[in-house]
Amino acid sequence: MTELRTLKVALLGCGNVGAQVARILLDDADMLASRAGARLELVGIAVRNLDAPREVELPHALFTTDAETLVKDADLVIELMGGIEPARTLILTAMRNGACVVTGNKALVAKDGPTLHEEADKAGVQLSYEAAVAGAIPILRPIRDSLSGDRITRVLGIVNGTTNFILDQMDSTGAQFADALAEAQRLGYAEADPTADVEGYDAASKAAILASLSFHTRFSLDDVYCEGISSVTAADIAAAKDAGFVIKLLAIAEKLPAAGRETGTETDAGTGVSVRVHPTLLPREHPLAAVRGAFNAVFIEAENAGELMFYGQGAGGKPTASAVMGDLISAARSIVLGGPGRAETTTGQVSALPITAAVTSYYIGLDVADQPGVLAKIARLFAEHGVSIEIMRQTIHRDADSTIESAELRIVTHRASEAALAATVEAVKSLDVINSVTSVLRVEGV
Amino acid sequence: MTELRTLKVALLGCGNVGAQVARILLDDADMLASRAGARLELVGIAVRNLDAPREVELPHALFTTDAETLVKDADLVIELMGGIEPARTLILTAMRNGACVVTGNKALVAKDGPTLHEEADKAGVQLSYEAAVAGAIPILRPIRDSLSGDRITRVLGIVNGTTNFILDQMDSTGAQFADALAEAQRLGYAEADPTADVEGYDAASKAAILASLSFHTRFSLDDVYCEGISSVTAADIAAAKDAGFVIKLLAIAEKLPAAGRETGTETDAGTGVSVRVHPTLLPREHPLAAVRGAFNAVFIEAENAGELMFYGQGAGGKPTASAVMGDLISAARSIVLGGPGRAETTTGQVSALPITAAVTSYYIGLDVADQPGVLAKIARLFAEHGVSIEIMRQTIHRDADSTIESAELRIVTHRASEAALAATVEAVKSLDVINSVTSVLRVEGV
Repeated sequence: MTELRTLKVALLGCGNVGAQVARILLDDADMLASRAGARLELVGIAVRNLDAPREVELPHALFTTDAETLVKDADLVIELMGGIEPARTLILTAMRNGACVVTGNKALVAKDGPTLHEEADKAGVQLSYEAAVAGAIPILRPIRDSLSGDRITRVLGIVNGTTNFILDQMDSTGAQFADALAEAQRLGYAEADPTADVEGYDAASKAAILASLSFHTRFSLDDVYCEGISSVTAADIAAAKDAGFVIKLLAIAEKLPAAGRETGTETDAGTGVSVRVHPTLLPREHPLAAVRGAFNAVFIEAENAGELMFYGQGAGGKPTASAVMGDLISAARSIVLGGPGRAETTTGQVSALPITAAVTSYYIGLDVADQPGVLAKIARLFAEHGVSIEIMRQTIHRDADSTIESAELRIVTHRASEAALAATVEAVKSLDVINSVTSVLRVEGV
Repeated sequence: MTELRTLKVALLGCGNVGAQVARILLDDADMLASRAGARLELVGIAVRNLDAPREVELPHALFTTDAETLVKDADLVIELMGGIEPARTLILTAMRNGACVVTGNKALVAKDGPTLHEEADKAGVQLSYEAAVAGAIPILRPIRDSLSGDRITRVLGIVNGTTNFILDQMDSTGAQFADALAEAQRLGYAEADPTADVEGYDAASKAAILASLSFHTRFSLDDVYCEGISSVTAADIAAAKDAGFVIKLLAIAEKLPAAGRETGTETDAGTGVSVRVHPTLLPREHPLAAVRGAFNAVFIEAENAGELMFYGQGAGGKPTASAVMGDLISAARSIVLGGPGRAETTTGQVSALPITAAVTSYYIGLDVADQPGVLAKIARLFAEHGVSIEIMRQTIHRDADSTIESAELRIVTHRASEAALAATVEAVKSLDVINSVTSVLRVEGV
């Protein structure tokens, strides 16, 4: 192997994932050389604090606080610092200096993907970020390459392990959100400040990235409707379970049906893409329903391929490092072979649709007065708004002496637009027989 | 798009998959051009019979019986004829003339992969065959690219829809093999001559391909131990079900544990790869156990990535065409960008192990005499052969007047070598208390 050229690798950040990447680069150098066709030499690791404790013991001489200088002299730059700045500036500097960049920075790619890609194209270098979505699961590359001759129509992803763990706990133990969150924090699945996970922001970044690659159009975080799981109650989960559903936080990107037949171009005038994150009811027999704990999975529907699912570990140092290394080897191969692969095709012009244009089924829970004619009143009101009811079930709760405590009405609708549903729910609220609307949740996979 | 160059595409074969590929090339030309960066012009379809009925209506002028001339004037050749010859000669001719080749021919790739790859390398063209394994599921490219910086330790695949459908039928209805096969034939899931599917030969080809890519070493069909499902009985399935297992025909490729620690090179002296196809018991909670009907799935274990699963449609015209088109677009991009990607790294030197070296758990069913001391005798015999018993369960069947009809003993072992197990089973047979060995099945995923 002595005749192989050597490529210089700079690593920015040395947290969980970074430390594992460094370990692999150092320990598996021969294997990596045989895979890449070049030796990959780790020339430096940029960190904020030289003396911070690391997951893995690494040679002290590799560490530097001068990221700026480090990236200017590398063939391959791995950015695992997270956050927008200085990550953004360092990546741009690296690419302008001719380095291929691998990053796991979902927030940055979702926010500023167009700028980064433009710069990569201009510099003729590869920019890849498999680790940014669903950890170890190869998903971005299959979408970009394997499905490049097909038309993806819908993507449903469980892309946040923290929320999946919490919902799974609530489902299996009947716990309330706060207790399940505390348990997740205790086990290290949730951070001290869990906002980014539980409010869906992390999943929203991933949704923007998945939508961009799936529909060959660049969507940013601003195009994503986002609703987290903090308002999901144990009662919601129990009611869903009772009706044969499980509640998952899904990242969804789907092309809405065109009025006419598609023209075979990417423009598809009249269609648009709805990109959204929200708690979603899934039938228990749906392949995504079986994704438990902190695992991730992405379910894809394509015109010719049909249904595909990709499943694996969505986080963690080693799994995420595996994805980083796959990108790194591919980038190294492209350098060895001369010239980059084109990373994305973005000839598409489909527009992002507002949440009001989304079309899905809904689950609605109502606390109603137990009077004759209530069901008829409510059914009529749904019909007037053009929302068709698929299932309506009333449960009467009685107290010890058999007087009625409350009546609970659960409705699952056929597919309807968010706008029509919202108008229906508003109207329902003003009915005198309604005590309260206890939950409104979207349903997929039926 | 007028400034895009045009690449000539030749199609060999026009069965289910070929007809769908032709349709996509003709109907979605603009989309494909935007994805590939070049227009893909279908210049001809080579068939044996010009007037055979086709799944899709296609321009008559495209058809020819002269495959030889067709492949010599193409930039991209898609081979979907199947069989060894003339497919092999045509592919070699195409590559020698500078064309990139996409094929779905698992039998040919499994039999003669080394020759084909050597020729592709020599000609500097891409050779790809995603459609050859698990239909629409992107699996070969993820193994080759996404997992290129990781070490795969094991691959378990449900890669034959016919046998999965039959086993699923047997499991859900209690049917015997012959009846489930007849049902599969009636529904078009099994061919009139089902030998290649039910005896595992189709899965064995796929196992050889999966093993080659996963372990960076070229394995051929001769390296694969193969056992089909025709001897699996309804009683086997029922007994497995009773014990919490499902029986699947699995294609397995796994690196056997090294005596010492791996050295970081691909050579891994002292280790080897066991490549095999056989009916296998899987715990019902294993992700592969839920793969129903004619679906396919591949479960991968890698050192850093951990457990991954890829799921989707394993056959059918449109799904398989999707995989062909993904390869075609990638090959076209490589031509547009100049120079091929290296398709495989095959620096590995791990050897294929004989089935006797495989190490797994076993399920053994015995028809035994109901005498005191039988269990002790059998347990001692297993111990003498170094095969450790995990579960031993005796079921006594009585007839109407309560006399004992038979006693059935079911044993699940801990992991043991095939050689040790075979010796144990031979010894058990000669015990006077044994009426017969009713089944010996391998167990994975425990």
